[in-house]
Order: sequence, then structure tokens, then C-alpha cells
Amino acid sequence: MKLTVTEKIIKQHLVKGSLNRGSEIGIKIDQTLTQDSTGTMAYLQFEAIGVDRVKTKRSVAYIDHNMLQTGPENADDHLYIQTVAKKYGIYFSKPGNGICHQVHLERFGIPGQTLLGSDSHTPTAGGLGMLAIGAGGLDVAVAMAGGEYYINMPQIVKVELKGELCLGVSAKDIILEVLRRYTVKGGVNKIFEYCGEGVKNLTVPERATITNMGAELGATTSIFPSDEVTYEFLKAQGREQDFVEIKADEGAHYDEEIVINLNQLTPLIACPHSPDNVVTVKELEGKKVNQVAIGSCTNSSYMDLMKVAQILQGKTIAENISLVISPGSKQVLNMLADNGALSTMIKAGARVLECGCGPCIGMGQAPNTNGVSLRTFNRNFKGRSGTVSADVYLISPEVAAVSALTGYITDPITYLKDKKINAIDMPKKFFINDNLIISPAPENNDVEVIRGPNIKPFPKTEPLKDKVGGKTLIKVGDNITTDHIMPSNAKLLPFRSNIPYLSEYCLTPCDSDFPKRAKKLGGGMIIGGINYGQGSSREHAALVPLYLGIKAVLAKSFARIHKQNLINNGILPLTFESEKDYEDIDIMNDLAIENILESIDKGVIIVKNVTKNVEYTMTLDVTERQKNILKAGGLLNLMKKYR
Amino acid sequence: MKLTVTEKIIKQHLVKGSLNRGSEIGIKIDQTLTQDSTGTMAYLQFEAIGVDRVKTKRSVAYIDHNMLQTGPENADDHLYIQTVAKKYGIYFSKPGNGICHQVHLERFGIPGQTLLGSDSHTPTAGGLGMLAIGAGGLDVAVAMAGGEYYINMPQIVKVELKGELCLGVSAKDIILEVLRRYTVKGGVNKIFEYCGEGVKNLTVPERATITNMGAELGATTSIFPSDEVTYEFLKAQGREQDFVEIKADEGAHYDEEIVINLNQLTPLIACPHSPDNVVTVKELEGKKVNQVAIGSCTNSSYMDLMKVAQILQGKTIAENISLVISPGSKQVLNMLADNGALSTMIKAGARVLECGCGPCIGMGQAPNTNGVSLRTFNRNFKGRSGTVSADVYLISPEVAAVSALTGYITDPITYLKDKKINAIDMPKKFFINDNLIISPAPENNDVEVIRGPNIKPFPKTEPLKDKVGGKTLIKVGDNITTDHIMPSNAKLLPFRSNIPYLSEYCLTPCDSDFPKRAKKLGGGMIIGGINYGQGSSREHAALVPLYLGIKAVLAKSFARIHKQNLINNGILPLTFESEKDYEDIDIMNDLAIENILESIDKGVIIVKNVTKNVEYTMTLDVTERQKNILKAGGLLNLMKKYR
Repeated sequence: MKLTVTEKIIKQHLVKGSLNRGSEIGIKIDQTLTQDSTGTMAYLQFEAIGVDRVKTKRSVAYIDHNMLQTGPENADDHLYIQTVAKKYGIYFSKPGNGICHQVHLERFGIPGQTLLGSDSHTPTAGGLGMLAIGAGGLDVAVAMAGGEYYINMPQIVKVELKGELCLGVSAKDIILEVLRRYTVKGGVNKIFEYCGEGVKNLTVPERATITNMGAELGATTSIFPSDEVTYEFLKAQGREQDFVEIKADEGAHYDEEIVINLNQLTPLIACPHSPDNVVTVKELEGKKVNQVAIGSCTNSSYMDLMKVAQILQGKTIAENISLVISPGSKQVLNMLADNGALSTMIKAGARVLECGCGPCIGMGQAPNTNGVSLRTFNRNFKGRSGTVSADVYLISPEVAAVSALTGYITDPITYLKDKKINAIDMPKKFFINDNLIISPAPENNDVEVIRGPNIKPFPKTEPLKDKVGGKTLIKVGDNITTDHIMPSNAKLLPFRSNIPYLSEYCLTPCDSDFPKRAKKLGGGMIIGGINYGQGSSREHAALVPLYLGIKAVLAKSFARIHKQNLINNGILPLTFESEKDYEDIDIMNDLAIENILESIDKGVIIVKNVTKNVEYTMTLDVTERQKNILKAGGLLNLMKKYR
Repeated sequence: MKLTVTEKIIKQHLVKGSLNRGSEIGIKIDQTLTQDSTGTMAYLQFEAIGVDRVKTKRSVAYIDHNMLQTGPENADDHLYIQTVAKKYGIYFSKPGNGICHQVHLERFGIPGQTLLGSDSHTPTAGGLGMLAIGAGGLDVAVAMAGGEYYINMPQIVKVELKGELCLGVSAKDIILEVLRRYTVKGGVNKIFEYCGEGVKNLTVPERATITNMGAELGATTSIFPSDEVTYEFLKAQGREQDFVEIKADEGAHYDEEIVINLNQLTPLIACPHSPDNVVTVKELEGKKVNQVAIGSCTNSSYMDLMKVAQILQGKTIAENISLVISPGSKQVLNMLADNGALSTMIKAGARVLECGCGPCIGMGQAPNTNGVSLRTFNRNFKGRSGTVSADVYLISPEVAAVSALTGYITDPITYLKDKKINAIDMPKKFFINDNLIISPAPENNDVEVIRGPNIKPFPKTEPLKDKVGGKTLIKVGDNITTDHIMPSNAKLLPFRSNIPYLSEYCLTPCDSDFPKRAKKLGGGMIIGGINYGQGSSREHAALVPLYLGIKAVLAKSFARIHKQNLINNGILPLTFESEKDYEDIDIMNDLAIENILESIDKGVIIVKNVTKNVEYTMTLDVTERQKNILKAGGLLNLMKKYR
């Protein structure tokens, strides 16, 4: 049978299920990664599972999100992660070492292996021919404990690249073109597999830019083949022994196919407030800019920043511009420091920030009110920058650099035409210095795990009872995002390990009294509309309702990852069979569900509205495995039961 | 008459008064500087005065405090300051260009001139032989408008330096030694003038470390002579034309004299939670450390950071250490980037932060709970780091660097003994690139001043009425600081231009209901104990009570700068003639003062407690000039009246 790259890797890691599209599969996970905003919770869950050493080939804990540290919470979390990593066999990448995805690509990623990360941009490692998927922290904890990871086998989209990029056009423009065609919903339950003769013209970091931002398609992941370019990259990282060639078989079957001709691409720009709101840079040329931000896991590689330095060489940024640059890793920063490129940036007037996620996650550098900010990042959702009224545009490093010099949105092709700009060569040898990566202690060590006062235990659950009741505490409309359920910003991110504190903000963008009401009544139910829980993978959107005593969410439909997170935490995700029942329910109605344990097996659950004395028929659309999770009262309980 | 350096400069700038100690003098101000946390308010006040151009020889607006930018407030303030500076003839130093005091030393300070800055560490420029004083924003605004600056003529302390520092001992240890001897209260109403043959062995940046941290003595300022070392520094900055020699006359009279023998100094350390809590490093050697922070206006010069790089060369920081380095200016950063020292720091594992105040003002890098942090900064007040439970120690760059390598407090003399460490030579030529300093527009320009929504007008006052009444809204004890009156931290600093918002936090560390009560009752009086308003120079501690309708503060005694700030804002600072009257007054008593205008001239004011039907005799100890300010309802009104 002819196989795609994706199929080859999945087949090799298949523990349960088959390659039949849509069916549930369980795959073995070789590597995991966490970052600090999701990591604290993931390690608390890992500890709760109770194994005494990670079972993966490699697990790495990175610090890259909460690096501003305006209070003790972040340093406390970092110390917890450092000590828990040391104890349980996990490599620890200290703050300052760089963004998880960039460092993982450089130092740990291995073609053909599987990677599960508690960050939605984990697919970055797909640039190296790795099957890399973002997931909730509990799924990562389970993988560290040796459990497989479950998804429904995705469709595979063939993206054929032809030709070569022109000067001033960049890998970022390729993924912006895919987003323009597919939109942010077009990739759901799909894996984007890149191939074609154009692939060989892209370096691994360029490929990683594409697989990274593939997350914005809603895709399960994106992947490139592992070829001679991959080999050269690994060799330059001193890791040629990690190389494995993986190419799709001639004649392999794909579920969809598209073609992109690289020669025809022009610089693109994603307008506010969605990464798929893509037009050509030309169309917006001349618009005045306040801020240019270069960096993030999408565009902070050595190659990206060398291009920026070359454009800034001998020039000064415009008077109206604040230019901030956050290099992706210590390796990148150190090489720029050694070859003079960093000095070039400083001379031009750039503010060089720490190696980390920084402004991309709203950790600093919020633009001015109504400001225009050009960013080489992957997301431009309204308010994500820290300034609700700001207009954020997503662009390539080339567009960023030339616009910083002119002060307005500028097409690099016109700007660079008569300038002496050369293609940047891939280094034959990267500078290797892993002294900010701390190796774990040997097995059976007596490392003390240090927990700061901000690290609160996560909520425990009990096996599902046969009868569940409660009041409808809130009724919301369609398309409620995880940002509604559990808001995320520079003020709340430091509290990701403190569920009791976060609970005070649960669903407050919809109803500021919800947390108080939920606490007063000791929990109850949530009524949702279509696509409830869309957006990021954050499991806090399930953990926090769990803490508030939410037993079930009754909605018209659920977003995939959030539904999984609800199940993992033992909260029933019930779908209205008849949408008019949604209309019938009011807030503060008394609901009761009986004989649940039997009903779960049937997949049909009768909910009685005691207040109105009517019954609603609800669907529970889950797999057998998920039924067992729900009965056990969550994945952690199930894990413990079977150990 | 034989004169000291201080007397020579004051004499040359004297507009009113004489050199008689303790008498009020008015001096002409040549230069001003502001930073962004006090600057926004200072420029709003400058605009309110209504002149159309600054009258100083040089005024510079720096951005160095609010650089994290977790919301739009900071970028809005920066844009306001940039545009107001451009319009009114003020040089603007963009974010990323460095800490005001470091940049001012490098690029603008001139020996023999006067500098008034809205930051308590303005005395840094005393390292260059400048008479540099920190003051409230309104005083700086008045100076920009051409008004003189008033103080009582201070005592002059002669600090005679003998000999030369040993390897591993640093300028920081000199000022720590002065603090050890004098304590944080010992410098009040004094100017510390350094002299002696040891002076010639200190570079200008080393001298600036000493004058900078002289602020911690409570001193009016500190100053060095301007000599051949000063000339060499200015020449290396391309500013030899700014050099003027200023030395004390042989036989000049000083009010006090001390001698420090540099050869006998050993590395010192200020323990939590006061800069004068000084012991030798040796005494604490071996204490485990979590964080080392290098930078701030005290120790972030090229020389300081070169010493650090030399110690870090080829090494890696200890596993338990987070080492953060914030270079003092773009000039420093660029030179380190060019000569390889920056790369050395990165290789060793340092996190290189932006050029700015950063962790010193609690803007990021808060230590872990109960953490031990060694900092090359100037203040270690409890909680200033952002972590109330942290223990912060103040040390030299040498102690910082060696301790970062060992992971515990380490004496550099022992550590460096057998290592090849050379003295760092002063550069013959600094790298000069002022492209982040924006020159003002020519006179009569039409620059638009841009005000973000966070910039609220400051409270207006009216001429004093002859009868004032109100309820006693709060009664506090002794030693209330400006931190009690107007708390300052990473969460509140971005709102320094928003008095209405800040008012919700006024005096809340003493009584969380105070702001609400003040607003409800439309203002009233504050009852204070001894030393009311001690601490920083922040005029927000007067502006915010003014906004809340406070008419008078009745206290046992006042701190000097806060008293001036109250007067400047038209709030009566009244002192109990009999301290038992303090005991008599209760909260929510009704007070009434009649015939104020006449009583002010007498300096005795009768306050009637209507509730208790008793009278209190209060003293108003102010100069004639201050009486006029109070009658006018504040300095701004008086300025406008006489224009």
C-alpha cells in the first residue's frame, strides 16, 4: 500500500484503530513538550497519575511564556517546573533559552517520531518531518505516563509546492496563502502534508514557519517530508545521527490536493482580526504604522533575523516606529551577537527583547490605543496584543523590516529592488551550547519538588453518579470561545496554576455574576449554543468550570478540543436533539438527569426540567473510550484505576 | 571667599537668597530631565503653565520606566510625551535608548550646570560635576517654564577619598560604606561633596554610581569635582567642548568632614530591607541565591558590564540561578555587542533585558516567594521587587557576577584571586549614535500633541478661601510613607497619568474605605502622626488627595519633600502645637478653619472641632513664597497669575 508521510508515521505508532479516516486511533507518543503557562498544570496532573518516571523517549519542559514576572507567581511556577522536571526525568529549558518550538526544532525534534505538546503551535516540529500535535495538559501528562494519545484519524491534504520564492517573498507568505484559501475553519480534522519539487527550496526553519502557522487553519497538524535538507539542518545542529528519511510513496492517496506556485506568490498580509483575513501588502501600502514586532515561534529563526538585519544595515527606524525584536532562542541570539547582526539591529534602533514568546501572547509591548502594529506572529485576534482597540497585521520578517524603516506598510519587493540584498545562506554549523538545558536527575533520586503558594491543587473528580441535578447557571449564545470561558491575558496568565483564583473570572465576559452564582449554588449546568468552546486548546476552560461544580454542558454543538477537555475532566457534553429545547430552557431552571450510567451506553440522555416539568432528549456523541472516561469521572481517575 | 564645588555652582545660579545654611534659596535651572512615570504629569503641568517653549538650555524627556507595556496605557503615555516634547522644544529619548541618568551622563550632562529631574536619582549627573537634584514633576515643569527652583541652602559634607580600590572592590562599595556610616536619614538637607587624591582614581561612571546612590542617604544631592578625568570622559563622548574645570578652593569651609580610605574597603552588601543595612560580603558568604540582577541607574555602565563579562567569560551560571542583565543605555549595549562581551554574557546563560529601569522599579523579574535576590541596584525596600516575601541584597557588579557563577553569596576577592582578571580600561572613544534621540521641532510649529484615553487632566485648584471646613476622613500613625499614600507597583505605575484611577488606591494600605469615604463626602481633612509623607518624591501623593478634595493635612510633623508637594498643590500642611490635640481628634469629626488668609501670615491657625466644640492651635511653618503659593491655591495658579 502506498502511504503518505503522515500515514507512515501514524502506522508505525498505532496502538489502537486503523488508518480509516474518521475512526478513533490511539498513537504512541515518543516525545512531549510543555511551556510554562500550561506546564504547571500538566505536571501537577502527571504527579497525580503517580508514575515515578516519564515513559517517553524525551520530554522537555520549557519556560517561554510568563517571563515578565511582575509578581512572584511566575518565578514560583518556574521553580516548581524545574524541580518536578529534575525529579521525574524531564529536560528543563531555563528561562532565556528560548521559545519551546524553536528550541525543540534545533535540539530535540526527530523525523518520523511523534511529539505531543501542551501548546497549540506544537506542529512547528512538522518542519522536521515529525508528527507533532498540540493537546491539553492532561493528554500530555498521560503521554508522559506512557499512555497513548487519541484522535479521530484526520483527512490528509496534499499541498504541492512548485518553483522557488522570489526575493522579498517568504515562507510566511506561503502559509498566509494557504490561510487565504482555506480560512481558519478549513483545516479542522485535517493534516496538511507538504510535497512537490518546491519543498527542496525551503530550509527547515522555513518549513517550520509553515507548519507552525498551520495551527491557524484549525488543522490537527502540518508536516513536511524528511529529506536531504532535513539532513543538512540536523548535521548543522550536530545531530546527523537523528536523521531518518521519510518521504511519501509515489502514488500515495490524499483526501484533498492543492498546488501553490512559489514563483507567483507576492508578499501577503493578514488584516485585523483574523489570520485568514489575507490581502496583498501592495493593497495596504502607505498605511502609517506605530509598532513593528519581530519574533514569535513563527518567525524568529536565525535565517529570519539575518534577513531583518540585512535590511536594517546602516539605517535607522522611522521616528514614529517602535521596533521590538525577540529572538527565538539563545542559539539564534548568540549567533547574531557573534556575527554582528545583533549590533546592526541595535544600531538601527531596535529594542531587543528576551528570547521568549513575549508580545505574541500579549506579554508586554501592547500597542497604543487605536495603534497599528505589524507583527511577524501567527495570531491577530482582537485584544490579544493587550490593546483591544489596536489593529494588528501579520506579516513576514521582510515586510516588517522595510516597514520599520519607512514608517508605513511597505512592499519589500519594490523597496529592495535596487538595494544590495543577498539570499541568506543556511549556516553549515549552528552554534551549539545547551548550558541552559538542565538534565534530569538519575532515577530514584530524592529531589525535592518546590511548590510556591500560587500553585494550588487542581480540582478532583469522583466517578459519575447515576443521578445528576442542578440549576442552569448561565445560558449563552453561539460561538462562545475558550477566551469567554477562561479569559487569558498578561494579568491572568500568571495564575494558570491557581484554579481557585482563575475561577473568579470564568465566563465573566458573558455574565460577571456567573462565578459567584456557581459558588453559591454549589455548581450546576451551562447552556450553550452552536460551536461551544471554540478557539485555543486550553484545558483551563474545562478545569475551571469543574472547580465551580459544573456537571454538564448542554449545547447545540461543541468544538472538538474543548469537548475532549470536558470529557477528560468528567463533565458531560450533551447536545440538544431538538434545538427548540435550547429555546425552552431558562436560566435558573432546575434540571435532573437519572439513570445516567445506563443512558451513557445508549448515547441518549433524558434531561428533566423540574421547574417546567418537561423533558429534553440529549445526545452524547462519544467513543467507547470516552464513555469510560466519563463514567470514571475523568481521565485521571481512569488512569489511576487501570494502574 | 574660599568656596566648595557646590557653593561655586549655587552662587553662579543664585536668583534669590544667599549661601547661608538653612535659608531659602532660588536657583536658576539650566537643564531638566523627566522619565515616563513622572513625565506625563510634569508635561501636563507644563502645558497648563502656558508658555510656548521651554526656557532651559536643555530639557530631555526619557522613556525608561514603563517599558513592559502590558496594556495600551504605556504606549499612549510614550506617544504623548514624544509629541509634547517635539512641540515645546524638548529632546525625546525613545524607549530602548536607555535609562535617563545613564544617557544624560553620556550625552547631555555639563559640569557646573544645574539639572532638575523628576526622579530621585537625578544626582547621578553629580559624577560629572553637575549640581543635579531630584524634585516633583511640578517643580520640573516650573523650571522648564523658566522659574527658579527653591530649597533651603543645605549643609555641605566633605567626603575625602584616599588611595585606590583593590581588585574586586568597586565604587558601589564606597557608597555602601557611606550609607553604613550615615544611614538613610543621615543625609537630609545635606550635599555630599567628594574630594581628595582618591577621586582621580575613579572614572566618571564610577563617580556617578556614588552620586546616584547618594539619594539613599536622603541627601539633597552629591557631587564630584570636574577634573582631567571628567575631561577624558567628555572627550571620549565627543563632547570635550562641554568641559569646564570646577574644583573646590583650597581651604573652603565644609559643615562636616569624613575620610574614606579606598585601599581598606572590602566588598559590602546591603541586607533586606534597607540600603543602609550594610555588612561585609564575607559575613554572608555561602548563602544560597535564586536570582542575580545586574543593571539599574546605579550599575549599568560600560565599565560595570565589562567587569561582569570578564568574570563570566567561558563559564556557566549555577543551575539555581536566574541571571538578568539590563544594560544602562543603547551606547553601552551596542559597545558590548560590538566587542563580544554581550556574546560572553549570553554564552554564560544571562537573560539580557532591554535597556531600562526594569527590575529595579519592580517592572518585571520579581523573585520567587521567599526568594533571595542579589541586585546591583540602589534600593531594597520590602516588596519593591514585586515579591513581598523576597529578600533583596544590594551589591556591586563583581559580587553579582561571581555569585551568579557559584550560586551563593560569594566574596569576589577570594574567588578572583587566582583568576586572570584585569582592570577594565576606560574607552578612549565611546560609540556615539544618537538616532533614538528625537530633536524638537522648530519654534512656532504645528505639531499635534496626542493624548491617549489614559491621560486624564490633573485636578485643578482654586485660590484659598477664607473659610475651610470638612470631616476628618482618616487618622493615621507615625512614619506614613508616600507608598502608603499612593502605592506604586507594576500594576499601578502605568496609571501615573490617570489621577481619577489612582485615587481609588489612595491610602488604602491604611484604610481600604478611605477613597470611597472621601468621594462620598466631597473631601475633608487627613490626620497624621510624626514624619508624615516620608519616602519618595512622588507628587502623586499630593495630587491624588487633592483630587479627593483634601483641604488640609493635620500632622505632628511632615517629611520635607512631601510638605513641599502639598504646598505646591494648595493643600495646607498644619502641625499640631500640642501633640495631645492629635489624641483628641477622632475620625469623622467636623473641623472648621476661619480667617485663614489672615492667619497664614501669622503662621498660626486655629482649627475648630465642631463635633467636640474645642479648638486646636496649629502651626503653619512655611516661607513667604510658600504662603503665596498656598493663597493662590497652588504653584500652578501662582505661575499663571504672574505671567
